[in-house]
Amino acid sequence: MKRIAVLGATGSVGLQALEVIRAFPDKFELVGLAAHTNLALLSQLVEEFNPVMVSHAPEPVSAPAMANRKAVSMEDMASHPDVDAVFIGTVGSLAGLPVTLAAIKAGKSIAMANHEVLLMAGPLLMKAARKHHASLLPVHGALSAVWQCLHGEPGPVKRVILTAQEGPTEPRSSEVGTGVMRQEARSHPSWRMGRKAGVDAKTLMSTGMQAILVSTMFGIPQHQVEVILHPEGVVRALIEYVDGSLKAVFSPPTHHLMLQYALSYPERWHSNEVPFLDLAEIGRLTFSSPDLAGYPCLASALTAGKMGGTAPTALNAADEVAVLAYLGGQIGLNKVPEVIASVLHAHSVVRRPSLDDIVQADAWAREEARRQTVV
Amino acid sequence: MKRIAVLGATGSVGLQALEVIRAFPDKFELVGLAAHTNLALLSQLVEEFNPVMVSHAPEPVSAPAMANRKAVSMEDMASHPDVDAVFIGTVGSLAGLPVTLAAIKAGKSIAMANHEVLLMAGPLLMKAARKHHASLLPVHGALSAVWQCLHGEPGPVKRVILTAQEGPTEPRSSEVGTGVMRQEARSHPSWRMGRKAGVDAKTLMSTGMQAILVSTMFGIPQHQVEVILHPEGVVRALIEYVDGSLKAVFSPPTHHLMLQYALSYPERWHSNEVPFLDLAEIGRLTFSSPDLAGYPCLASALTAGKMGGTAPTALNAADEVAVLAYLGGQIGLNKVPEVIASVLHAHSVVRRPSLDDIVQADAWAREEARRQTVV
Repeated sequence: MKRIAVLGATGSVGLQALEVIRAFPDKFELVGLAAHTNLALLSQLVEEFNPVMVSHAPEPVSAPAMANRKAVSMEDMASHPDVDAVFIGTVGSLAGLPVTLAAIKAGKSIAMANHEVLLMAGPLLMKAARKHHASLLPVHGALSAVWQCLHGEPGPVKRVILTAQEGPTEPRSSEVGTGVMRQEARSHPSWRMGRKAGVDAKTLMSTGMQAILVSTMFGIPQHQVEVILHPEGVVRALIEYVDGSLKAVFSPPTHHLMLQYALSYPERWHSNEVPFLDLAEIGRLTFSSPDLAGYPCLASALTAGKMGGTAPTALNAADEVAVLAYLGGQIGLNKVPEVIASVLHAHSVVRRPSLDDIVQADAWAREEARRQTVV
Repeated sequence: MKRIAVLGATGSVGLQALEVIRAFPDKFELVGLAAHTNLALLSQLVEEFNPVMVSHAPEPVSAPAMANRKAVSMEDMASHPDVDAVFIGTVGSLAGLPVTLAAIKAGKSIAMANHEVLLMAGPLLMKAARKHHASLLPVHGALSAVWQCLHGEPGPVKRVILTAQEGPTEPRSSEVGTGVMRQEARSHPSWRMGRKAGVDAKTLMSTGMQAILVSTMFGIPQHQVEVILHPEGVVRALIEYVDGSLKAVFSPPTHHLMLQYALSYPERWHSNEVPFLDLAEIGRLTFSSPDLAGYPCLASALTAGKMGGTAPTALNAADEVAVLAYLGGQIGLNKVPEVIASVLHAHSVVRRPSLDDIVQADAWAREEARRQTVV
């Protein structure tokens, strides 16, 4: 039994993690649940899963399920000796960084759904993970696909090719979170972050960010990571080895599978939740090179990856501010890549940043982006 | 340095193996060369590679390069203590079986290009390989692709999907063998066997045979091995794991790569011979289910695989006789699948055959097929 804590449990990806845990009751013991503000849903989940530890924002909660629970901070939960694995489904980089560091320093196995934290402080976190024998495991699309490709044959790698599928500007219903009424959801910060994910998918910023994270997480030089357009989204990533042979991961259209893999790794478990991928029925798969002029957000991400140091930190911060400003009606969609490129251009990169350097670069980039997004 | 012997050195696949050995002079010491009848070409190769041992049909050879060579039998070469790895590029099952068994009993690493031998006696050879700690490594297309997919993550497997590309009825020029004039080539048995490979590709018999060998070599139950049509031939094989995720091997259009992998395994070596696979330029990959009524040879192969025991032995023998009869003008192409299905139908399968049972089944099937192909 893997003793697991789920942080960001009431967000969309946290709820998906709980679906996996629910589907494999003999594999997991859920020992901790953490959520920020959606205490109604958290109470329901506590009632269902009966965890020893609960963490939430410091507000009084009247639900009977929450009585007699050990209330702890997220950091204490993530580093608790009774926890083997931590699922980090929190959103935003500022809230996610301290808890990720706590889990790393405690040597946990960490299923890492919070890409913002990795973009903000990736090299520093990977170094800390090596030092403390912690594992940072990817949960999403192309990153999980690259990880699966490399599993068992880590190299020598010539190229990594990520596929990009233009996403919808509106988030899928699953991104809002099941069990929450849409009206209620709109009042939660996670709803706007869910919409942000939809915008990042549309601009291919999310693919560009994954290209950065492939380099961060798997130590593959950024210039060896490429992006190709693949509207069907069936082939998720390919690895080209030095001899010219390629290994690819194909995936049925479900988030469930890769999320489950992050929790089952290094095993694979049979799942009825995953639809069968019928290539003959799909019939054809298409591929083309992205025109970077048409995808300026992708171009900025690839540039930031090659710049290294605090450039991805600045990119992530600027993107968050710019996209939320667009969603708030302050700027148009066309202005988003302009703000990001301008912040990146003005940023003084620190090559081997300390945690302080990172926090400063993040704050500077947010301020710089905000300055450009005021109406 | 890997000390290697190449058997069937003057055939097309043997010459391809020598190209790899030529390209990596610091990786291999070529200690033995064997060919059956093409002694002119063998003499050239002996002059170039200067092997300690040479094996050929018992005819006097006047070429100066061949003087003072240690002439040995193929079996002695394949089992010689100075040999680490054996490349078996001989054609036909009857000639290949004793030498394969000799290499296995001597515990060699065997790059196995001779599929006929594996079809004839696969389970028996795999059992012997396990006993004598020999490795049987695939050299061709889908089999190599499955092997590469499984390398590092052998399971648990739900399905194996092989892709089939309708081949030309005429063999590519490379299948005739470089350095041999076409006129001269026509007089060699390997030329007709090269043409046989072209027919087997066209009828998808070769894909069906690979489906059998996937089961034989990797221990995957036959009903879990499927075939899908994929005209572009880029995706060579896919493995579906139990969780629903698929790993695939994509390959540039060259035989060189997989042949090299069989010799470099478990390493991969950079090669300038392998063209870059540009998915964006290829643009699209298509897939469809094969209509088994339209591919009766494929259907017979899949049936033989499910029957097991000596059924693949009979299939292989019947196919060889029928296709050579077609190439000799004795029967039409439509008659080929009829002969094979009829032989398979009449065959009394021995479930766990001894070597004697296999030799008998092979002889019976050849005789039965010959009876049906006399004009």
